[in-house]
Amino acid sequence: MKRRDILTAAGVGLAATALAGCNDKSEKPAAGESKQASEQQTFNWKMVTSWPKNFPGVGVGAERFANLVNEMSGGRLKVKVYAAGELVPALEVFDAVSRGTAEMGHGAPYYWKGKVPAAQFFCALPFGPNAQEMNAWLHRGGGMQLWEEVYKPYGVLPMACGATGVQTAGWFNKEINSVDDFKGLKMRTPGLGGEVLTKMGGTVVNMPAGEIFTALQTGAIDATEWIGPYNDLALGLHKASKYYYTPGWQEPNVTFELDVNLKAWETLPDDLKAIVRAAARDVNGDMLDDYNAKNMEALEQLREQGVEVRRLPDEVLSRLKEVAAEVVDASASADPVAAKVWEQQSAYLKRLYEYAELNEKDIYNIRG
Amino acid sequence: MKRRDILTAAGVGLAATALAGCNDKSEKPAAGESKQASEQQTFNWKMVTSWPKNFPGVGVGAERFANLVNEMSGGRLKVKVYAAGELVPALEVFDAVSRGTAEMGHGAPYYWKGKVPAAQFFCALPFGPNAQEMNAWLHRGGGMQLWEEVYKPYGVLPMACGATGVQTAGWFNKEINSVDDFKGLKMRTPGLGGEVLTKMGGTVVNMPAGEIFTALQTGAIDATEWIGPYNDLALGLHKASKYYYTPGWQEPNVTFELDVNLKAWETLPDDLKAIVRAAARDVNGDMLDDYNAKNMEALEQLREQGVEVRRLPDEVLSRLKEVAAEVVDASASADPVAAKVWEQQSAYLKRLYEYAELNEKDIYNIRG
Repeated sequence: MKRRDILTAAGVGLAATALAGCNDKSEKPAAGESKQASEQQTFNWKMVTSWPKNFPGVGVGAERFANLVNEMSGGRLKVKVYAAGELVPALEVFDAVSRGTAEMGHGAPYYWKGKVPAAQFFCALPFGPNAQEMNAWLHRGGGMQLWEEVYKPYGVLPMACGATGVQTAGWFNKEINSVDDFKGLKMRTPGLGGEVLTKMGGTVVNMPAGEIFTALQTGAIDATEWIGPYNDLALGLHKASKYYYTPGWQEPNVTFELDVNLKAWETLPDDLKAIVRAAARDVNGDMLDDYNAKNMEALEQLREQGVEVRRLPDEVLSRLKEVAAEVVDASASADPVAAKVWEQQSAYLKRLYEYAELNEKDIYNIRG
Repeated sequence: MKRRDILTAAGVGLAATALAGCNDKSEKPAAGESKQASEQQTFNWKMVTSWPKNFPGVGVGAERFANLVNEMSGGRLKVKVYAAGELVPALEVFDAVSRGTAEMGHGAPYYWKGKVPAAQFFCALPFGPNAQEMNAWLHRGGGMQLWEEVYKPYGVLPMACGATGVQTAGWFNKEINSVDDFKGLKMRTPGLGGEVLTKMGGTVVNMPAGEIFTALQTGAIDATEWIGPYNDLALGLHKASKYYYTPGWQEPNVTFELDVNLKAWETLPDDLKAIVRAAARDVNGDMLDDYNAKNMEALEQLREQGVEVRRLPDEVLSRLKEVAAEVVDASASADPVAAKVWEQQSAYLKRLYEYAELNEKDIYNIRG
């Protein structure tokens, strides 16, 4: 699931003009209050998001973040969540926070890769880090420092705020038995995954979420990737396609971001800053737990409804991996900031992958 | 690392009598304060822990929890951390919180399995869940509800508060080439792992952390398990043993717990309750990130110092797995509460493992 899909799915009609009536000012403490007045100031903040109302997984996670901040601050920092399109369109979340239209935003870093090419390296990479590895890099491997550095010129402070874990390879109406089967395949798959498909001889056809089902059913596309069983079941994709392929090589994890306008951030007292940071970390873990549990349950339901789960052949995965490495390197080389991030990140991830071989991977394999 | 080791490592000399001079009462708001007085009440709480001062990983995580609560509450809930032995011995943390000697505690659930046999199922199981799977079960699979139910009769509210991820199989001065090599092996390895070793024909020799190095060097023991590279390097075990075996079949993860005295909990206003819960979730993720990064770095250092990393043979791991399954089942059957937990948990984990086969495990394998 990427860029234009979310855009149209959420309805772009309700545009930024809806902001006109909003009051951006924080409430000032009344005269005569205690000397701790500054700490008692109340802030009413807006959080724009890339998600439709009640969107499973990531949308629910954004709501959890706002509720946590409201509860922990005892109402001193009230965060109101806006669905995509309510104040600004889904893909303008980063811009809106950057220019101060909203104090906060929640979205996926790769949605603004057109503006900030390095952003996708904090989000998802084909054959790249899973959630655990991305978190280790971000919080102990220098990732967050780089991310803050990359967003600073835009006046935005980023925090990791949610992860999907491993996704699936997608829904197919044609069998994939060899690399040749990608030739001429019409697939809806955006981003770096789409670039890989093009290099494999396929044709990328992008479209909003609402059109995928019909496109699959009519044969306008042969295949589509969305998120994982939890969100895919909700969209009903199994009713329009034959095979559900694994594993999700194109996105072994997607990390979502909380954006905070830097000028607004500096007006917060230290306790509220700490509350925002902890709420983001809470959601970062909780959303992954949610996806792991719900994806498992949804796949069981899909299988009960007759969905055939297939694994991409080794030969195909090997070729996809080679092509993905070229695509990621090319993407990094095209932008000096992205190149700097990828140089540090790729070296660190290589060390993490080597360590995972000895323990994490082995436990999966011997448990059988 | 388990029970008695921590006990002696931290020095049991400073006993619970040190509590005599402590004031357990929270500060009351002065008369004349605003109508929000109850929310402005200040609480001074003690948190006893099972960890020596500045203990890498888990000990640092406990300090992080206290700092987060102090910062987020703006000093309204001040948590003071006590190292093992300062107020109560390492293994009496649960008891101390249960009887209200301290309002909070941080330790490992399986330290009190003698009192609460079901506790270890929320902590670590041989060939059991990794950190990600344990978290999905706890926070979305009914685990936390069971954990709260199990601790309620003791007046303790538990929260997951930290994880180690996959540990290592330990340090050996004898090669393990077949299941027969466990016969007569003298190994320091407590808990369920120790029970497995005994069934394999080995001899479990338990001793405190401070004695392990000399015991290895003098041949009093042939092998020892501790935690993982990060903590093992700090203890210098590589200087007294030949081989470092992987994977950590006995503990694919250890989850740590925050304990809160239930009566004390009920005195907290809602905002402070939310702050405590979010701080625990923050540490739950952050400590895993810390272990993943630092274990990787420490193993690199160990290898630079000439440590030979070996993998246990498949034949050995298969047999260990069979025996571990018997040991876990027997442990659950011996206590009705543990049996209830394990019945629910084992069914849920089986579903999670099956899902992991398709995606998480496959990504590790194809990434190569």
